[in-house]
Amino acid sequence: MPRNAFYAQSGGVTAVINASAAGVIETARKHRRHIGKVYAGRNGIIGALTEDLIDTSREPAANIRALVHTPGGAFGSARYKLKGVEKGGHEYERLIEVFRAHDIGYFFYNGGNDSADTCLKVSQISAKMGYPIVAVHVPKTVDNDLPITDTCPGFGSVAKYVATSMREAGLDVESMARTSTKVFILEVMGRHAGWITAATGLAQAKAAEAPHVLLFPEVAFDEQAFLGRVEDMVRRYGYCAVGASEGIQDQDGKFLSETGLKDAFGHSQLGGVAPMLANLVQSRLKLKQHWAVADYLQRAARHIASKTDLEQSYAVGKAAVEFAAKGMSGVMPTIVRVSSRPYRWKIGVAKLTDVANVEKKMPRDFITADGFHITAKCRNYLQPLISGEAFPPFENGLPKYVRLKNLAVRKKTRSDFKL
Amino acid sequence: MPRNAFYAQSGGVTAVINASAAGVIETARKHRRHIGKVYAGRNGIIGALTEDLIDTSREPAANIRALVHTPGGAFGSARYKLKGVEKGGHEYERLIEVFRAHDIGYFFYNGGNDSADTCLKVSQISAKMGYPIVAVHVPKTVDNDLPITDTCPGFGSVAKYVATSMREAGLDVESMARTSTKVFILEVMGRHAGWITAATGLAQAKAAEAPHVLLFPEVAFDEQAFLGRVEDMVRRYGYCAVGASEGIQDQDGKFLSETGLKDAFGHSQLGGVAPMLANLVQSRLKLKQHWAVADYLQRAARHIASKTDLEQSYAVGKAAVEFAAKGMSGVMPTIVRVSSRPYRWKIGVAKLTDVANVEKKMPRDFITADGFHITAKCRNYLQPLISGEAFPPFENGLPKYVRLKNLAVRKKTRSDFKL
Repeated sequence: MPRNAFYAQSGGVTAVINASAAGVIETARKHRRHIGKVYAGRNGIIGALTEDLIDTSREPAANIRALVHTPGGAFGSARYKLKGVEKGGHEYERLIEVFRAHDIGYFFYNGGNDSADTCLKVSQISAKMGYPIVAVHVPKTVDNDLPITDTCPGFGSVAKYVATSMREAGLDVESMARTSTKVFILEVMGRHAGWITAATGLAQAKAAEAPHVLLFPEVAFDEQAFLGRVEDMVRRYGYCAVGASEGIQDQDGKFLSETGLKDAFGHSQLGGVAPMLANLVQSRLKLKQHWAVADYLQRAARHIASKTDLEQSYAVGKAAVEFAAKGMSGVMPTIVRVSSRPYRWKIGVAKLTDVANVEKKMPRDFITADGFHITAKCRNYLQPLISGEAFPPFENGLPKYVRLKNLAVRKKTRSDFKL
Repeated sequence: MPRNAFYAQSGGVTAVINASAAGVIETARKHRRHIGKVYAGRNGIIGALTEDLIDTSREPAANIRALVHTPGGAFGSARYKLKGVEKGGHEYERLIEVFRAHDIGYFFYNGGNDSADTCLKVSQISAKMGYPIVAVHVPKTVDNDLPITDTCPGFGSVAKYVATSMREAGLDVESMARTSTKVFILEVMGRHAGWITAATGLAQAKAAEAPHVLLFPEVAFDEQAFLGRVEDMVRRYGYCAVGASEGIQDQDGKFLSETGLKDAFGHSQLGGVAPMLANLVQSRLKLKQHWAVADYLQRAARHIASKTDLEQSYAVGKAAVEFAAKGMSGVMPTIVRVSSRPYRWKIGVAKLTDVANVEKKMPRDFITADGFHITAKCRNYLQPLISGEAFPPFENGLPKYVRLKNLAVRKKTRSDFKL
């Protein structure tokens, strides 16, 4: 007898996380011998705890297909870490209660490091609680910091967006530098790892082109060295474009964004490494500057998604279901790089015990010796990940994104659950 | 005998200003009976003053064609206002000296309000100084504030970028609002006119969708009303997305961005309306917020340019040359809207005496009575301007933009000119 499946999105969403959802749902529909309905958690795992399940079987095939070109989290995602067994394990017990009520035998969790850990625990608790469930993690994170997999679905599209944006803004600044802005700073995501900052570097084909300076969280920020480099670039090329990670830290490991801007009322000012750096450039070098903070634009930019990333996002969703149908639990599909030139990849498998809570940092040899740019080795790694375009359909000049019906499954447990 | 032409880019560049350049150059090549070579000013009008001219005739046709898909200013642009005749008119005299040396009989100036005024003065001074020159202005400005023309080339592409970005970021925020960011603020350009802010509003198809609040420079910022509206939207829809003009002002007409952020060293903090608003939301409403500042990304985003805008940008360049070949001087091609549904437009003509230094504001009936959104009339106006896609070619995952050879013309005047 087929059993139902539960799918949830976890943590920060991406331009292509819904492609993984489509991969899960479309593939499950082809495995009806093993898998019944796919229930999605409304707002991620919270939907499981509160028994707020979405019946994806009532969603037309065209809507599920349209997920492939729709950014954000179509079922809602959540930043919610389950309280561990050491705190009584009530939340895990509740999960099993809800799963039991809906005959859910498959658990697909689409997220990053934290959710890999949650998925692992679900796979382990099933034995302890005598409730059989197959748990498979579907990798996703713009931070590109999951181990074992060559890359993380979601990253390639952010990478393509930031590199494109830097190339475009660089041309703008270069063309006006004679009488206007000399220094431009683009702040990008990646609080602990510099992968997105590194991707910004792909925009540069020649030394004269933007970006001229990259600031990684892996390299302690040195004000004098930074200002010296900026001045040198302006002298050489007439302007300087900087790609800065939101997570750059000073020599003591303190985030630059927390060093204390205050507004007129004395409130400390929130975030924004770019304006701080711009301030530094203006006050110390007396150079006209401009800055941009891409924030959510970068991870939602489905209109400029990487085709490679899109295909991999779908593929890990599909593979997760195929693994589950074979009874493989406590695992995660990975992207395996077969070759870089030409770029070839295939799906592999990793044990969640090897994935959970492990962070993949940028290798030191991906950053130049001076700490301000990426090496050829890094380019070689990054370049294939942004390859190919996969534009969404447009209507009236704007991308046409789907909104699902997201019909609720009737509740079966009698108890309410307080988060 | 054909005479040569001078073309210069002026002021802030756009995603499609080079399409106007292509329109000028390609059309001039078809009017060899009237027009000899097209010389472009390196860094705009500065190139004329310093006799730093670029010979576009030495640029392969394929490069000129590639300008159609390349953002920024391919010859360099400048923020440089010629000193008026009241200051001795030395700069205008110098222009004529350089033009005479290179037998330049046509002056094409590609810019906004200021440059329309300069172009007008060139057309007038030709009679006074006994040097015949035909001067035609080629309209361009992301601010959309030139009079007479229905829209300004460059605006439609920014409009498409900000509306797309808001739609995408809105989906992101909506999908995570349950446990994460409740209020998202996107700061856009438009210091004196709210056209770009208005375009952000196109992202919203239903009241529940982003953006929920727009802040125009035309509407005095009312802190209480703003916070009340944000709170109401979060109550209703679970989140609130705000599109804010960089130029919003308080009741006394003071720019919000100048009200005084200070960094840890006591330096006043530069620009950024979005972080100020975010701070307000966080401190008064205690709601988690995020903000983005698109800055140059928005006006350089050729990858998501409007096809309509691109066609119009090319068309005004082409028309300018056709006007000039007929001997029409002191004029500017305009975009004339023939109908909105279906959208039809044609090229018209305006006298520069009617254009120079006149600013077109947003009509009050384009903004809703509460001041926080756009009306149906505004949508009707804006929608056609973002219609159609015109993606650039891609190579290795990134847009392939052209870099011209920009070979210099040999100098002929003996004098140096100090700016």
